[in-house]
Amino acid sequence: MFKNILIIGCGLIGSSILRASINKKISKNFFVFEKSEKNIREIKKINKKIIILNKLNNKISNIDFVILATPMSQYERVIPYLNKYLSKKSLITDVGSTKENIKKLKNKSLTKSLDWIMSHPISGSEVSGPKYGSKSLFINKWCIVFSDKNKVKQKKLINFWKKIGSKVIIMDEKVHDKIFSITSHLPHLIAYNLIKTAQDFQKIQKKDIIKFSAGGLRDFSRIAASNEIMWRDIFFSNKKNVVSAINLFIKNLKSFKKNIENLDDNTLRKKLVNSKKVRQQILNLKQDIAKPDFGRDQN
Amino acid sequence: MFKNILIIGCGLIGSSILRASINKKISKNFFVFEKSEKNIREIKKINKKIIILNKLNNKISNIDFVILATPMSQYERVIPYLNKYLSKKSLITDVGSTKENIKKLKNKSLTKSLDWIMSHPISGSEVSGPKYGSKSLFINKWCIVFSDKNKVKQKKLINFWKKIGSKVIIMDEKVHDKIFSITSHLPHLIAYNLIKTAQDFQKIQKKDIIKFSAGGLRDFSRIAASNEIMWRDIFFSNKKNVVSAINLFIKNLKSFKKNIENLDDNTLRKKLVNSKKVRQQILNLKQDIAKPDFGRDQN
Repeated sequence: MFKNILIIGCGLIGSSILRASINKKISKNFFVFEKSEKNIREIKKINKKIIILNKLNNKISNIDFVILATPMSQYERVIPYLNKYLSKKSLITDVGSTKENIKKLKNKSLTKSLDWIMSHPISGSEVSGPKYGSKSLFINKWCIVFSDKNKVKQKKLINFWKKIGSKVIIMDEKVHDKIFSITSHLPHLIAYNLIKTAQDFQKIQKKDIIKFSAGGLRDFSRIAASNEIMWRDIFFSNKKNVVSAINLFIKNLKSFKKNIENLDDNTLRKKLVNSKKVRQQILNLKQDIAKPDFGRDQN
Repeated sequence: MFKNILIIGCGLIGSSILRASINKKISKNFFVFEKSEKNIREIKKINKKIIILNKLNNKISNIDFVILATPMSQYERVIPYLNKYLSKKSLITDVGSTKENIKKLKNKSLTKSLDWIMSHPISGSEVSGPKYGSKSLFINKWCIVFSDKNKVKQKKLINFWKKIGSKVIIMDEKVHDKIFSITSHLPHLIAYNLIKTAQDFQKIQKKDIIKFSAGGLRDFSRIAASNEIMWRDIFFSNKKNVVSAINLFIKNLKSFKKNIENLDDNTLRKKLVNSKKVRQQILNLKQDIAKPDFGRDQN
C-alpha cells in the first residue's frame, strides 16, 4: 500500500498501528518518531526493521503516509516539520479524539499543498504506552474517517483502516464531537468525578472504602485510570459539548434525587427499566462482550 | 453444619448460595421457597434433592438455617411466617444490600425469641435469576456479617460464609450503609443517570450513538442493566446516605466543569492523576481483575 510509513508518537495507539501495519505488510519501510527512551526500548522489541527517528528532518521527505499519534496538544509543535519536509504526494492522518479543534489547527497551520485527512479509531484502554499495544486492537472496531475533497487519498486512508481490521464510517467533525461528548468524554469525566468523590468521602469519614469497591466503584476506577494528558486535551478541546453534556447530566441527576427523596416508585422504576434496554442494544451491536460482568472472573 | 437449610427467594444470589451449599455439603436437606415458575424450572435443574416449597407453613418448623434472598421489599411479607413456624433454635440471615432498614424492620416485626443476624455478601452481577447463579460466586469475595449478641450463632454464620469461600468482616449497620452508599449505590445511580442522559441526548439530537459506545459508555451500561426492583429498594432504603453522596458528587462535578471552562490545566491534571491511584489500590487489594480493559477481548 505504502512505501514509507511514519508514525509520530508511538504509545498505545501508535504502537498498535505499527504492529498491525507490519503484520499486514502495509508498507515497505516503517519509521517511528518517538521521544521517550522507555517507549523506544519497547518499540525496538517489536521488530528489527523499524527505523527510529530522533528528529524530524529531511529523512522524512520520502514518507508517503504519516500518522500523528501523539497527545493532541503536541500536534501544533509537529506541523512546522511536516510543512518543511513532507512532499505533496504524502498523506497525513491523526488519531485524535476530538476533531473540530484539529480541523481548525490544520486549516490555520498546515501548508495548503499537504493533505491531512483526519481519523478517529474507537479503541483504547486505561493503560498507555507501547508495551500494551496490540496488532489486533482495531479488529472489528469502528474507525471514523472525516470527509475530504481529495477522494483518492480519502479512499486510500479508508482502505488502510480496513486492512488493519477496522469498520470505517465517514462523519463530519461537528457531529463527531457532539456524539463523542456523550459516548466517551462525559463517561470519562463522570468516572473521574466518582473516584474523586469516593476519595473525598474517605477523607471526611476516615473509612477505608477501596476494599469494598467490588460493588460498583471498581468499574469506574478502570476508566478513571486513563492517561491524564490525553484526557485533559480532550476535555479542553471539546469544552463546549462537554459542558453541555455535564449540564444535561446534572439536570437528570437532580431529578433522580428528587425521585428518591419522594420515594417516587413509578417514575424511578420506569427510569431504571429504560436504562436496561441500552445494554441489550450495545450487545446486539457487538459493542461489548456478551457475558455477565464483562466475563471477568478472578477465581 | 446444618440439617435443614431454607433459602427464601432463589434468584442470582439465592441460587448461588444453594449451589455453593450443596457443593460444600453445608446441610443434609435443602429447601427453597420460590414463587416464579420460571425460576423453579431452573432450580430443579441444579440438583434432584432440592425440596421446593410453594408455601411457608409447618413444613419449615425443623429448618435450622434460613437465608432471605428476596428483594428487600419482600422481607416484611415473609416475617409473619418465620414468627409463626420457626423454632428458636433456628438461625436467620439475609443478604440485603442496606442494613439500617433491615435492623429496624426485624426489631419491629420479628418475634423476640428468634435470631436474625444480618449478612451482606459483596457479589452480584447485572444479570439476575437462578440461571446465572454459580457455586463459586462468593469465592474470595467479602461478606459482611453484622454484630449480634448471640455469639454462638454469629460464629456459626461466619463459618457458613467462610465455608462457601467468602472472606468475612464484621461491621456495624450505620457504617455499612455509609460506605456502600459510596462504593456501590452512588456508582449504580450514576450509571443509570449517564445512560438516561445518553438516551435524552439521542432524542434531542436525533443521532444514533449506541453504535459508538465502545469509547466509555458501554462500561456504564453494564451496571445500568441491573435489576430495577433490587435497586429501587436500595435507593429508597438508604435514601439519607444516597442523597448526601449525590450532593457531594454534584459539588465535585460543578468544580470539574469550572476547571474545564477556565482551561485550568494545573487543577484538572492534579485531579486526573489522583484518580489514577485508586485503580492501583483496587488491583493491589485484588478487588478487580488485573488486566487492561477487564481482560475483555471480543476478537
